[in-house]
Amino acid sequence: MKVGVDYYPEHWDRAIWEEDAARMQAAGISLVRLAEFAWSRLEPTEGQFDFAWLDDAIDILGRHDIQVVIGTPTATPPNWLVAKCPDVLPLDNKRQPVYPGVRLHRCYNSPSLRRYTQIIVEKMAGHYGKNPHVIGWQTDNEMIGNDSHSDAAISDFRLWLQKKYGDLETMNRAWGTVVWSGEYSDWSQVNTPLGGSPHMNPSYLLDYKRFCSDSVADFNRFQARIIRENCSGQFITHNLWGYPVVNDYYDLFDSMDFASVDYYPSTDLANDSKSRVYHGALTHDLTRGLKQKNFWVMEQLSGTPGCWHPMSRTPYPGMIRAHAWQSVSRGADAIVQFRWRTARIGAEQFWHGLHDHHGKPGRRFDEFTRFSEEARRLSPLLDGTSVVNDVAMLFSHDQLNALTIQPQSDGFDYLANFKQIHRAFLRLGVGTDVINWTSDISRYKLVVAPFLFLINDALVKTLTGYVAAGGTLILTTRTGVKNMNNVCLPTQLPGPLSELAGVLVDEYDPVGHDTQFVSLAEGSTFECAQWCDVLTPTRAETVGTYASEFFAGRSAVTRNRFGNGETYYLGTVLKDDGYKAWFEGILTGLNIPVMPHLPVGVEVSVRADGERRFLFVLNLTKSEQVVELPEGDYQSVLSQLAAPKHLVLEAMGVEILRSVYKI
Amino acid sequence: MKVGVDYYPEHWDRAIWEEDAARMQAAGISLVRLAEFAWSRLEPTEGQFDFAWLDDAIDILGRHDIQVVIGTPTATPPNWLVAKCPDVLPLDNKRQPVYPGVRLHRCYNSPSLRRYTQIIVEKMAGHYGKNPHVIGWQTDNEMIGNDSHSDAAISDFRLWLQKKYGDLETMNRAWGTVVWSGEYSDWSQVNTPLGGSPHMNPSYLLDYKRFCSDSVADFNRFQARIIRENCSGQFITHNLWGYPVVNDYYDLFDSMDFASVDYYPSTDLANDSKSRVYHGALTHDLTRGLKQKNFWVMEQLSGTPGCWHPMSRTPYPGMIRAHAWQSVSRGADAIVQFRWRTARIGAEQFWHGLHDHHGKPGRRFDEFTRFSEEARRLSPLLDGTSVVNDVAMLFSHDQLNALTIQPQSDGFDYLANFKQIHRAFLRLGVGTDVINWTSDISRYKLVVAPFLFLINDALVKTLTGYVAAGGTLILTTRTGVKNMNNVCLPTQLPGPLSELAGVLVDEYDPVGHDTQFVSLAEGSTFECAQWCDVLTPTRAETVGTYASEFFAGRSAVTRNRFGNGETYYLGTVLKDDGYKAWFEGILTGLNIPVMPHLPVGVEVSVRADGERRFLFVLNLTKSEQVVELPEGDYQSVLSQLAAPKHLVLEAMGVEILRSVYKI
Amino acid sequence: MKVGVDYYPEHWDRAIWEEDAARMQAAGISLVRLAEFAWSRLEPTEGQFDFAWLDDAIDILGRHDIQVVIGTPTATPPNWLVAKCPDVLPLDNKRQPVYPGVRLHRCYNSPSLRRYTQIIVEKMAGHYGKNPHVIGWQTDNEMIGNDSHSDAAISDFRLWLQKKYGDLETMNRAWGTVVWSGEYSDWSQVNTPLGGSPHMNPSYLLDYKRFCSDSVADFNRFQARIIRENCSGQFITHNLWGYPVVNDYYDLFDSMDFASVDYYPSTDLANDSKSRVYHGALTHDLTRGLKQKNFWVMEQLSGTPGCWHPMSRTPYPGMIRAHAWQSVSRGADAIVQFRWRTARIGAEQFWHGLHDHHGKPGRRFDEFTRFSEEARRLSPLLDGTSVVNDVAMLFSHDQLNALTIQPQSDGFDYLANFKQIHRAFLRLGVGTDVINWTSDISRYKLVVAPFLFLINDALVKTLTGYVAAGGTLILTTRTGVKNMNNVCLPTQLPGPLSELAGVLVDEYDPVGHDTQFVSLAEGSTFECAQWCDVLTPTRAETVGTYASEFFAGRSAVTRNRFGNGETYYLGTVLKDDGYKAWFEGILTGLNIPVMPHLPVGVEVSVRADGERRFLFVLNLTKSEQVVELPEGDYQSVLSQLAAPKHLVLEAMGVEILRSVYKI
Repeated sequence: MKVGVDYYPEHWDRAIWEEDAARMQAAGISLVRLAEFAWSRLEPTEGQFDFAWLDDAIDILGRHDIQVVIGTPTATPPNWLVAKCPDVLPLDNKRQPVYPGVRLHRCYNSPSLRRYTQIIVEKMAGHYGKNPHVIGWQTDNEMIGNDSHSDAAISDFRLWLQKKYGDLETMNRAWGTVVWSGEYSDWSQVNTPLGGSPHMNPSYLLDYKRFCSDSVADFNRFQARIIRENCSGQFITHNLWGYPVVNDYYDLFDSMDFASVDYYPSTDLANDSKSRVYHGALTHDLTRGLKQKNFWVMEQLSGTPGCWHPMSRTPYPGMIRAHAWQSVSRGADAIVQFRWRTARIGAEQFWHGLHDHHGKPGRRFDEFTRFSEEARRLSPLLDGTSVVNDVAMLFSHDQLNALTIQPQSDGFDYLANFKQIHRAFLRLGVGTDVINWTSDISRYKLVVAPFLFLINDALVKTLTGYVAAGGTLILTTRTGVKNMNNVCLPTQLPGPLSELAGVLVDEYDPVGHDTQFVSLAEGSTFECAQWCDVLTPTRAETVGTYASEFFAGRSAVTRNRFGNGETYYLGTVLKDDGYKAWFEGILTGLNIPVMPHLPVGVEVSVRADGERRFLFVLNLTKSEQVVELPEGDYQSVLSQLAAPKHLVLEAMGVEILRSVYKI
Repeated sequence: MKVGVDYYPEHWDRAIWEEDAARMQAAGISLVRLAEFAWSRLEPTEGQFDFAWLDDAIDILGRHDIQVVIGTPTATPPNWLVAKCPDVLPLDNKRQPVYPGVRLHRCYNSPSLRRYTQIIVEKMAGHYGKNPHVIGWQTDNEMIGNDSHSDAAISDFRLWLQKKYGDLETMNRAWGTVVWSGEYSDWSQVNTPLGGSPHMNPSYLLDYKRFCSDSVADFNRFQARIIRENCSGQFITHNLWGYPVVNDYYDLFDSMDFASVDYYPSTDLANDSKSRVYHGALTHDLTRGLKQKNFWVMEQLSGTPGCWHPMSRTPYPGMIRAHAWQSVSRGADAIVQFRWRTARIGAEQFWHGLHDHHGKPGRRFDEFTRFSEEARRLSPLLDGTSVVNDVAMLFSHDQLNALTIQPQSDGFDYLANFKQIHRAFLRLGVGTDVINWTSDISRYKLVVAPFLFLINDALVKTLTGYVAAGGTLILTTRTGVKNMNNVCLPTQLPGPLSELAGVLVDEYDPVGHDTQFVSLAEGSTFECAQWCDVLTPTRAETVGTYASEFFAGRSAVTRNRFGNGETYYLGTVLKDDGYKAWFEGILTGLNIPVMPHLPVGVEVSVRADGERRFLFVLNLTKSEQVVELPEGDYQSVLSQLAAPKHLVLEAMGVEILRSVYKI
Repeated sequence: MKVGVDYYPEHWDRAIWEEDAARMQAAGISLVRLAEFAWSRLEPTEGQFDFAWLDDAIDILGRHDIQVVIGTPTATPPNWLVAKCPDVLPLDNKRQPVYPGVRLHRCYNSPSLRRYTQIIVEKMAGHYGKNPHVIGWQTDNEMIGNDSHSDAAISDFRLWLQKKYGDLETMNRAWGTVVWSGEYSDWSQVNTPLGGSPHMNPSYLLDYKRFCSDSVADFNRFQARIIRENCSGQFITHNLWGYPVVNDYYDLFDSMDFASVDYYPSTDLANDSKSRVYHGALTHDLTRGLKQKNFWVMEQLSGTPGCWHPMSRTPYPGMIRAHAWQSVSRGADAIVQFRWRTARIGAEQFWHGLHDHHGKPGRRFDEFTRFSEEARRLSPLLDGTSVVNDVAMLFSHDQLNALTIQPQSDGFDYLANFKQIHRAFLRLGVGTDVINWTSDISRYKLVVAPFLFLINDALVKTLTGYVAAGGTLILTTRTGVKNMNNVCLPTQLPGPLSELAGVLVDEYDPVGHDTQFVSLAEGSTFECAQWCDVLTPTRAETVGTYASEFFAGRSAVTRNRFGNGETYYLGTVLKDDGYKAWFEGILTGLNIPVMPHLPVGVEVSVRADGERRFLFVLNLTKSEQVVELPEGDYQSVLSQLAAPKHLVLEAMGVEILRSVYKI
């Protein structure tokens, strides 16, 4: 386990570099990320390179036993490049340039961007590819979106479509352009979605989003290739910004050695809804699922965020340490705090680091050093462990994009609904792996595959095989609606999965915010909203019925035994309590242990390997909480004390427990 | 009476056309609208025409005794046309192209649009002008707005102004351009309202809106001329989209044989305010008033609407039938359901038709067939009847536009206020004709002429003559403010109508949402808002006084006997209950029968001819309702049973009653 | 004291000019403002001038003993100029033209605007520079903003920066452009903030706002120079629009003889929050502070405002008179009502003047004549008096701009927070001078210097000297954060003022809308919000401590004796009651008399000279109010009656009192 900081020596007087490095070393820091926005310092004008300052910084850090990750600076094309090659700038959907907001002002399809990226990355990789202090690379920074309508983007889009469809006739048919006379008779008629009207053909819009995502992933692969050709023994990663995004992150990371994430949990504890408290855990689970292995946090909350937007609350006492441990508990192997010093200059002056502008250590720095000391102490125990779960949730950027193009009902939001399901497991103390919907799922006891709006034969086969072999599968409403071209299927819902589910959707009511009621088999009634499928079981049994509206008494939830397993179909969207109650029954039936009395805001996670098993218990609230531990005897690896059955955690309290016998 | 569907054979495999036609025939369908967006299929590339597929479709339908209405496809210029002639696209007020949202992407002033419209419409009219299955034409689709700032639009606007004003000096004077140095010294300085600033001269803005409206009406006349020249014995109509719109619909329909409307009542029954429930009735009354005769519904609600916006609630059981009968009750002679099959492709995939994507008949289709069967059965009775009322309301697109350019106070909205008055009559069971403000009104017992903000001598003469001859007229606040150039009159309000009203406005307070109170003569007090004229009766008597604010005790409502009739002046805007109480008194005085106890959401309407008279009673709510019928004995023409005095209507229940004696 | 009206003879038939002038004279009007939008009448086409009509109007007015102020018409470039020189139009941040909204359509950096301004102003000044009826000039109209991105603006901005920084390297260093590779390597790379992204470098953005402000002030100086060169014995002023604005009004008025303001208090009395009631007083105090002397109201509320936006409430009976006296009470020496007649034409048709469209005198005109008569009667008493206060508040456009670029927390708004402090003094009946933060403050007993976010050595020296010499100074949170380049200082807060305040900020929490509590020394607890500095007094004593959150018990408010004076530091933002209670204690300690029981909406102000002293007591509410007068015996100069200890003021009542003995 590594603890580090993000550091910008180029922003500070060289006189303090040495002092900073010494203070870092004293604080247990063994890792620094450098240079990811420093293009104008590394290549001040075209073709003139200056790496001396960075060499010095790395030398100083190296002398204090600090390893370095170098970021390629391509997120910030310098002014000379924009002035010389205006095609570096994206064009918006009215074909007007998107001017620099000092950052992310680049069209991924721009030939100039490629040319100058190649030059600077090659130079840097050549220069640092064998530097013993440099252990790895971060490509670019928080790559999101590419909604450019430049000539290059339009031209690349046409090529992308030609590659996918071969000829126009095939594309016209696949997209159903006959509607509203949208048929193309020549490739030159095909543009990116100029004007931004939402009325456009959804098949076209989904392909455009895929093209945008591919453009970004391709730019990342391009950088990775250059680095690999010039470096040896150094890893390559990228730091992702949060969800939701258009980009398919699974594709974005296919060229990376492992995933990294920038993590800024909300500090607004006074107003956080229950839903937001659990957002961070999902971010971590999604990130871990990108490569299905441990990951890094490349930027970790160190102070109040704020810049052009108002500052948020300062992190509550204990929050910096607690969230660093939260990241570790869910699979982080390195915690890099953003940032060492709060910037005195530039647009992020109030995105606070570990030190305030005056540079003296204070409360937040002290919290960090406490974490750093603990991490150093526990590192031998935790190294090599990872997060292993019995439950998987299938995530899909394609579904996210398709359901954003065509929102199904008021309040229906793919990511929010996904989060809600994930949250129900969190509140039951059950870990979930959140993985790509195309992943192998055979090893899981329970798989939740929500909102499979788009579907293909491969997925039907995977899911059918999984259940036949004994797996338990949960499907939901809005499943099997469309093929991968975003065209509606002619089959009765849930379409190709109706046999596996043993159920047919007779009709549906997009109830939106009109709350309805559903009785689960055990007699208790829960609220539901957004959507109501009125079900006719063909082979399934009904386990939940509607208790309101004209469809009262009709099936809402079913269970179908199929092969050695079973498939649940949920025809509506529950609220938190409904999900929790329903899942508790299913999990108990599968002998997956649950902790149904966890206080809101307390999270648990397990890191283990063949031998070791550590239970993290984290109080992410600003109040004391009492947690009833599962059966067994536990010892704290932080304090070495035996844990009481009812563990008392102070506000932002953290415990890491080892079972005295194997749990 | 005809029952039909909108059908898009070009979206479906030819294999199912025959099956569809047979199922239509079995369901009692005798009418299909076709082809209104099929330009790219009819003319796949410039000058290459393919009518064979449409010929086939019409043949198949014809063989099943189904008649056809053909839509001209000009609402969807195909990609080849946009690519070849970019001037087809409108320019927005920043002079940027309005790119295709796949529909309505055309500048009505574009010469290229005219040229290619002429070609395709001429070809179609020539081809189908004598086809025995084709009974008529629909021009274009839902023509609204033309807010283009293209070179052609600017040039046409200058010509339009030159024709209207002759010379610049006259126009400068008429518009009062001297304010803020807005005087033009050369025609080349006159533009469309570029930039969209709301600060512009209101006389100029109103003329621009008139020009836009004329451009649209002219385009419709242009198509009608081509069709008439090439066809014989076929009608021409156009399907209008709802209110409000800039376009003057009376002008738009001057070249049409009858009016048609697309009707999508809200399915949001759980949250509908009282006001929205009655919206559909006004739409029907406005449509009937366009040509002052029966009309068609060219698109009728058949399932939940939804596309790029979230889907609404599915139509409540009974709603499809009830609203079809509602349309008939207010003057529709044909009901064309939109659409036969829900689209699997394109942007309207979730704008549901009678069949879901899987194509099997279900609950909604069954409801439709019930209506279809009833309509077929009652057709001999209803054919030839029409809606005849004693009350008229005068509607004006000029007032709508002028009051949109200059909203008078918070909450003051011409259409909403108009609706509110119309609703009061609906709740009293009194039918109203809603007609153009320039229409002949001599045959009505009561005329409501609200918000005559703009006024001219002709109208003053019409209204004066009407009252002198014995009519009863209701005028409201914001009357007589301006001349037709949107310039304020120098007369004390209500200006040229002050003699007819016998009252002068001493001062006014735009009270907006600050609710005030008014006591009507009978002693009861009602809420009012938006605007308060403080009145000084000159010859009128006071029938309502303010009960709040610094003008408490001053006149708010007056009645003036003039000639053989009388004029009411209402100096404020009442709430629903106030209007209902006030109108009930006036109507009773005029011996117009009222039904003051109608439940909210229950509508009545009468269709009659010299002999026959049918009372429609419609429960448009999702609860059972009891209606006290007017004096007399009634028999249901649906069930042939005698109707009880207190008629019980189930949710979405419909009754059509014949008086055993003439009512 | 002068009473006048704004008049537009060019909008009206010449036949009524004479009648208008006679009615003005009869109403006591001795002043008229003319011509400020009449460019197209004065120069109908390029180079053709027509002053004859204006000569006539001035002659007629002169014959009725009415003096004239002429406005230069440069706020409305005529159509011929825009058509000939499109560079007159500003470009928005996407570089699209900002088309005329009939007014303010000009780029202050446009060379064409300068050229044609020079011509028209020179002609007018030459023509009227010695006219005996013309007593002065108003430049342009309500100059605000200049957010143009034209070639001329970009070029001027580069020159402005070159003048300020000399070379690029200095500018790069001053702005900290190294962040995000924002360094410039050539002046041609420097643009105005195209695209409008809020992510930009705050040092750059602040300089851009200063440049915009300078462009406007320079245009005003340019006009003033031309007028001075051509006129003699005539004053020059400008009429400012309200706050907040980007422009530095102190700079804007440096070329003016005195300040004028356009004053439209809210008529929405039914819904006005306490905060809005006091807005007008601050506007007056700010205006008086611009030149630190009496000012004019060039446009005074005369009827409901309304145009393209809905009309507001009509002025409540008494309001027109009461607000005219309010202006006088706070330093106005002339009240010019906007406008004589309500316009019948153009975009301001519903911005009501003293007469309605019909032109007959009514209630509002009667109120005005009452004021006019009173003003004429009291003029001998009031002439020569001015407003003198013991308390000053330091206002700064630089702080306003810097804190707008980087809002500090939810709800933190410089102007709103400034208003809140000002309001607390108003509610205590204590007058404040609101002056530029660079002004001499030595004569004040108490100086409030809120939110000195940016700071420089000169200010530190001024404040330190003031306190050392015995002054009392109140500082607040967010003080001493940055240098004048908008770069954060490396010192612990409040930075360079920490010695004067005797306190250090340990850490801070941007609490936003999360209300916290602070106990002031006297034991009472008040709400605070937005921001909490956690203080460590170094030499100061604690006078307030937090009573909530993790910093409960820590210092929130301190007092530091320094030299002969003392400095308070307030580490948070109080609510109204907290400010009122805290200030009452401080004021009492300084022997500044307070009126703590003033009803909400009642304002007092004192005008005095060496001999005379008049206490204005104004009830600006729509209810009767009772005011307990300070010790002493008073006589009304309006009624000559003795004033009771508990003065009863009717709604909108006004009293002007003279102490029978010197108060």
